[in-house]
Amino acid sequence: MGVAMKTVEFRDAEVVLIDQTLLPGELRFIRCRDIECVAEAIESLRVRGAPAIGVTAAFGLAMVALQNRGEAREKVLAALEAAAERLERTRPTAVNLFWAIERVMRRARTAQDPAEAAAEEADAMYREDLETNRKIGEHGAELLRDGDRILTHCNAGALATAGVYGTALAPVKVAREQGKRVEVYADETRPLLQGARLTAFEMVQEGIPVTVLTEGMAAFAMREEGITKVIVGADRIAANGDTANKIGTYGLAVLAREHGIPFYVAAPLSTIDRATPTGEEIPIEFRDRTEVEFFNGRRVVPEGAGVLNPAFAPRTNTSPG
Amino acid sequence: MGVAMKTVEFRDAEVVLIDQTLLPGELRFIRCRDIECVAEAIESLRVRGAPAIGVTAAFGLAMVALQNRGEAREKVLAALEAAAERLERTRPTAVNLFWAIERVMRRARTAQDPAEAAAEEADAMYREDLETNRKIGEHGAELLRDGDRILTHCNAGALATAGVYGTALAPVKVAREQGKRVEVYADETRPLLQGARLTAFEMVQEGIPVTVLTEGMAAFAMREEGITKVIVGADRIAANGDTANKIGTYGLAVLAREHGIPFYVAAPLSTIDRATPTGEEIPIEFRDRTEVEFFNGRRVVPEGAGVLNPAFAPRTNTSPG
Repeated sequence: MGVAMKTVEFRDAEVVLIDQTLLPGELRFIRCRDIECVAEAIESLRVRGAPAIGVTAAFGLAMVALQNRGEAREKVLAALEAAAERLERTRPTAVNLFWAIERVMRRARTAQDPAEAAAEEADAMYREDLETNRKIGEHGAELLRDGDRILTHCNAGALATAGVYGTALAPVKVAREQGKRVEVYADETRPLLQGARLTAFEMVQEGIPVTVLTEGMAAFAMREEGITKVIVGADRIAANGDTANKIGTYGLAVLAREHGIPFYVAAPLSTIDRATPTGEEIPIEFRDRTEVEFFNGRRVVPEGAGVLNPAFAPRTNTSPG
Repeated sequence: MGVAMKTVEFRDAEVVLIDQTLLPGELRFIRCRDIECVAEAIESLRVRGAPAIGVTAAFGLAMVALQNRGEAREKVLAALEAAAERLERTRPTAVNLFWAIERVMRRARTAQDPAEAAAEEADAMYREDLETNRKIGEHGAELLRDGDRILTHCNAGALATAGVYGTALAPVKVAREQGKRVEVYADETRPLLQGARLTAFEMVQEGIPVTVLTEGMAAFAMREEGITKVIVGADRIAANGDTANKIGTYGLAVLAREHGIPFYVAAPLSTIDRATPTGEEIPIEFRDRTEVEFFNGRRVVPEGAGVLNPAFAPRTNTSPG
């Protein structure tokens, strides 16, 4: 699947991204040559998914580093620090972003040639992400059986990572490679419809059967459509296991327990934040009310009404039922 | 509030309806002079809500009856039977529709002047609906306290009934009249957004504070926003109390129980179907996949993906937690 391979790349000194806000209607690439372009892409969710924005931020720093190659060491580092500061202001919830920035900056700060070191580190992170997701897929596929109907939320697939396997969708892809007949149910995931637009798109591209439903249909699907497992990704996992993910994940976990359906979180180690003791300390990302208020230019909430738009929120661990 | 008064009216031999598919952007009335117009309005959800479609169907029959006034008794009855047959094919879940048709037809079949009788019966049902909803409001308001934050789903307000109070929103309106400071949280209710478009519109018109959220945010709102009660309407209530309502209601009930939040169903007696023993026998209304697949002309689900679209489904009673 060519598309998934190219969620984000660093090529010819440019950060090249799929503009995911245009999917599934249009497959357009953005070519960033400055850090503002990269930061805007993260803020506007043109690239989204915790691992993908981590790799994108690392590539952004590599781009700045290479643009300053040959300059004095202090000048390179100052340019990197400014870029890092800008990137840190894009999204508060996903820990991979901060982890990626810190990792590239630490390497640059301690290297003789910070430009070279930053570029190397970003490339290493990209390759690690691909490898990690393949391993998540291998481990997760062991849990899947012929006939499984897997409900997922938002998009934790190739488009949420550097590419190919993704996190929550990796077990599904590997299970299909192994010849298991599994299928996917994708919550459309309001307000931005990443499940309908991105997860379904990925599944169709891969030839994996997928059915889109609205979040309000999830309990119905568990009771009437034979959902056997729920697999979701994570934006941050606290030291105690509390997990922050796209709004709706917590409710889905409660519904899965009610129906006796196993609920899995698939994420790389970089999503675990040992510095955050519990979900209570994970900041909730409230996004602009217009995301709920308008759709494709049409007002769907009347003026004068309030709007709630917590986009990412911690799911406190619930005891197994 | 002038708007709520006119959800549906019978005036100058026409059935006059608000086209609710255009709200909140545009307030346009449809004037039906034939039964096909009335049936299409019900099928296309231009008028929706179990009590409203019951009254609309009754008005449709009254219109046909008056158009045939002065004709032979057999001819009037034949025209009414044909109209009733057409109306019965519009929506399968809401029992009020069948109840209303049966009530008008029974009265017409046994009357000397079936045209006069049908028109009288439809008018009586209209007035009863207004009165019943006022009473639902009075009873329900006793349960509400200063500071209550009431989550509701879809629209069970004036726009779902003949007008003014509605069912699920009636307790809120009466409580506000009594000076209680209560506010409403409205699930947007995908795919057709009746919560965002209609419930929020009604609340803004009435000056009642309302906040719109997506279904995926309901569990978050229960845990973090201090929701104190959930009130929903019903499309049909089986003899054992199982309730069918807009998709999402069942999941909301599970989440309310998890959070220890009282969950109320507000409905008139005409919604109770004693001929249906349990929710298992209530037909599920699956609607067209395009409702989920496209939004305001934009494709949001890729071609090749399946779509689940059960619009109305029974919520089996869950034991109190």
